[in-house]
Amino acid sequence: MNFKEEQEKRMKQVEKIIQKYLPEETGFQKTVLAAMNYSVLAGGKRLRPLFMKETYEMFGGSGKEIEPFLAAIEMVHTYSLVHDDLPAMDNDEYRRGRKTTHVMYGEAMAILAGDGLLNLAFETAAEAFALGGDPARVGKALSLFAKKAGVYGMIGGQTADIEAENMGGKVTEELLLFIHEHKTAALIQSAMMTGAILAGASDADVEKIEKIGYDIGIAFQIQDDILDVTGNEQMLGKPIGSDEKNNKVTYVTLKGLEQAQADQKALSEEAVGLLASFEKRNPFLEAMVEALITRNK
Amino acid sequence: MNFKEEQEKRMKQVEKIIQKYLPEETGFQKTVLAAMNYSVLAGGKRLRPLFMKETYEMFGGSGKEIEPFLAAIEMVHTYSLVHDDLPAMDNDEYRRGRKTTHVMYGEAMAILAGDGLLNLAFETAAEAFALGGDPARVGKALSLFAKKAGVYGMIGGQTADIEAENMGGKVTEELLLFIHEHKTAALIQSAMMTGAILAGASDADVEKIEKIGYDIGIAFQIQDDILDVTGNEQMLGKPIGSDEKNNKVTYVTLKGLEQAQADQKALSEEAVGLLASFEKRNPFLEAMVEALITRNK
Repeated sequence: MNFKEEQEKRMKQVEKIIQKYLPEETGFQKTVLAAMNYSVLAGGKRLRPLFMKETYEMFGGSGKEIEPFLAAIEMVHTYSLVHDDLPAMDNDEYRRGRKTTHVMYGEAMAILAGDGLLNLAFETAAEAFALGGDPARVGKALSLFAKKAGVYGMIGGQTADIEAENMGGKVTEELLLFIHEHKTAALIQSAMMTGAILAGASDADVEKIEKIGYDIGIAFQIQDDILDVTGNEQMLGKPIGSDEKNNKVTYVTLKGLEQAQADQKALSEEAVGLLASFEKRNPFLEAMVEALITRNK
Repeated sequence: MNFKEEQEKRMKQVEKIIQKYLPEETGFQKTVLAAMNYSVLAGGKRLRPLFMKETYEMFGGSGKEIEPFLAAIEMVHTYSLVHDDLPAMDNDEYRRGRKTTHVMYGEAMAILAGDGLLNLAFETAAEAFALGGDPARVGKALSLFAKKAGVYGMIGGQTADIEAENMGGKVTEELLLFIHEHKTAALIQSAMMTGAILAGASDADVEKIEKIGYDIGIAFQIQDDILDVTGNEQMLGKPIGSDEKNNKVTYVTLKGLEQAQADQKALSEEAVGLLASFEKRNPFLEAMVEALITRNK
């Protein structure tokens, strides 16, 4: 089986677990439940739960307490998209070819569906206590999970991103890296670190994983910026050059294409090198990281 | 010291604890942090944390692990107000005489501030693991706390409330009670049950507390409906008769004033009676409940 088929297979396993934790659409509140399910089931590659599961297994985890966390991180990711798409935010009417949640269910219901998913994420993660997970580990994982999603994680990045939009060309490299680290890398770090913590990895290893998650997140974003300059429109499925057209400050406009490519390569190599440095390796996880940061679409 | 002074004193103690857990307004994300603090510090009687603390103490709790939960429940309550006030929801420009969060900080920042507070609530509550709380109890409290705030609690009630607004006069008693139970009673139940669980109350006692929280929440809402008919405009600080003018289905319009008053009295008496039935009593908590449900403003 090649890597693509293997990823597809593992993605489907994760998908089944996520679905187990989605609400039944019943009761007086069924509209919000339907809107939540619509949003989560809109597709996506389930990268974050996959990263979590693979890291968990790399550190020898084999319990059931990981399952609610797999669903929970996808709920956090999804709620952030639902709120991001709102008219007051990015005002997007389509995502992955489907109508966004507020277009389908109205703005009020989309706000509540996002709130509902964020809340359900914690409700679901807390179920790990009853699934035989070591309470101290589950508590530690829950704290980390909450921090990386919040104002010192993803929400912090979204805030800085909104502020940057109103700064015109005055965005510094420091701010740009803050945005990428918090808006993108934080949830990848959360996924991998949660997996490591639940599996009982040492503090030193969890710290290494945090660095790997950082590298992957930033490399992923730089690659985005690079592809907007060098990409193939047909493969990307969207027009290139849009960053320049929108006067958007990106890693490429700040550092130049060559430097961006060099930095992206260095980050990717560091991530893969660190992953390979653990006592037990996970070849599939390493391949996933390689595929993600060397992607051309 | 009379009850009012005592409540004021205890409220200030709770206020100090809440403030300890509020974020410092610094970093690239400082706008969202400022919006969060603005919202929490807009005032309010801190009833939910007070209920939590008093219930905790009634069951003999004396640790520090209650403190993050006191802040957390006020964050949940506050985020729900911030999102409720949004233009797509109730579109309120003022709350307690101050501009609402979206009027002060813009809609995008208000959405993020609400998300940030909800997330910070769980982040904060999870700190209880490090404060000497028994991990099993903290885990159980966290699960309950999450459930009562979510789609099977407060968010469920908000959803049903929005749906009811579009149903004209067709709101049934069952739906109205669902809304009150979930939109209002759920966070009171959460407050009291979290306190009981953290203090190590038995399952039977936690169940009793859930019933008490239900009674208080519903009695509180019925009192609201009664005061809209019988209240003194000057004391209430708002016009009476607005429910009738808006063709709003309330407990009074459904059951008549006399029945509403009788039901409210029965619920209140049940709550106070149940509170008095525990081995150790908390006279201040009993007085708080009495004051809340017999209020005339």
